[in-house]
Amino acid sequence: MSLIGLEHEWVHVDILNQETHSEAFKAMNPNAKIPVLKVSDENYLWESNAILNFLAEGTSWLPDSDLERARVLQWQFFEQYSHEPYIAVARFIRKYLGLPDDRLDEYRSKQTGGHKALSVMELQLTETDYLCGNLPSIADISLYAYTHVAEEGGFSLEKYTAINAWLNRIEKLPGYIAQQ
Amino acid sequence: MSLIGLEHEWVHVDILNQETHSEAFKAMNPNAKIPVLKVSDENYLWESNAILNFLAEGTSWLPDSDLERARVLQWQFFEQYSHEPYIAVARFIRKYLGLPDDRLDEYRSKQTGGHKALSVMELQLTETDYLCGNLPSIADISLYAYTHVAEEGGFSLEKYTAINAWLNRIEKLPGYIAQQ
Repeated sequence: MSLIGLEHEWVHVDILNQETHSEAFKAMNPNAKIPVLKVSDENYLWESNAILNFLAEGTSWLPDSDLERARVLQWQFFEQYSHEPYIAVARFIRKYLGLPDDRLDEYRSKQTGGHKALSVMELQLTETDYLCGNLPSIADISLYAYTHVAEEGGFSLEKYTAINAWLNRIEKLPGYIAQQ
Repeated sequence: MSLIGLEHEWVHVDILNQETHSEAFKAMNPNAKIPVLKVSDENYLWESNAILNFLAEGTSWLPDSDLERARVLQWQFFEQYSHEPYIAVARFIRKYLGLPDDRLDEYRSKQTGGHKALSVMELQLTETDYLCGNLPSIADISLYAYTHVAEEGGFSLEKYTAINAWLNRIEKLPGYIAQQ
């Protein structure tokens, strides 16, 4: 939202205290997950990548042609199935749960899949500045999110030269706000 | 494709024999997963839901308004993160791997998440005929895929009245082809 200068109100939801499981929250998203976008009193939109597509419509963050739009979605579905379940889940277990013994096997099992996802990104970013070509799109936002904190999940980014250059490129875009 | 009468050539890829890991396949999709759509000699599109969006553009399977399009994506991202990893993976372990002892704990761990996803769908389908309203969209195709074979993953659909009515509704649509 800051990248496109869109005014909004941010409401924090404490997932560690199960706030997504209240009846009031489930009335907005029956799947009990953040984020949720309130579009109007009657319309709530859930799933981060669907929200990004909705907000980016008509901006340079979402291209015009059918194939380019589908390419953005390709990387966003890759993020949800092949990247987040490894990198974000490993980070959650380590950073938020403190790497408890009963999650250690699961944590370790995430390493191979996480590095596979990073390798697929590295290959693309060796060819183009951004995931969908030489301009940034919402696919970059989706994958920047957990990639730039992958080290908190135990994934060293040292060997991924193209990913590091891409992270730097994104962090210099007008409107970029560093994580608080 | 049959629902919109689109001519195409279907090429079978044997995932159990690792055909997605050949160099030729990875040149089409470096993430080594099916399906892949060959758009042209230079353009290959991967991720099933991205392919559905690309093919449905300009048809009644993808609505026009920004919010309705984002709603379709919402259900497709739900499918990839909250439905497929439980229902399709449990089915794979049971149907294709024959429920081996070393995957039994994993298989059992999928039951809760799978039924949670089915409950979220049931709630929506009690209100509307299809996931995004009273007309079918590609969101229904995405979620029909593994829902209609959920019993092969050990998920009884008996109590999901609205899901059963929805499955029947889809199977009566012109162009519907039953699984071979």
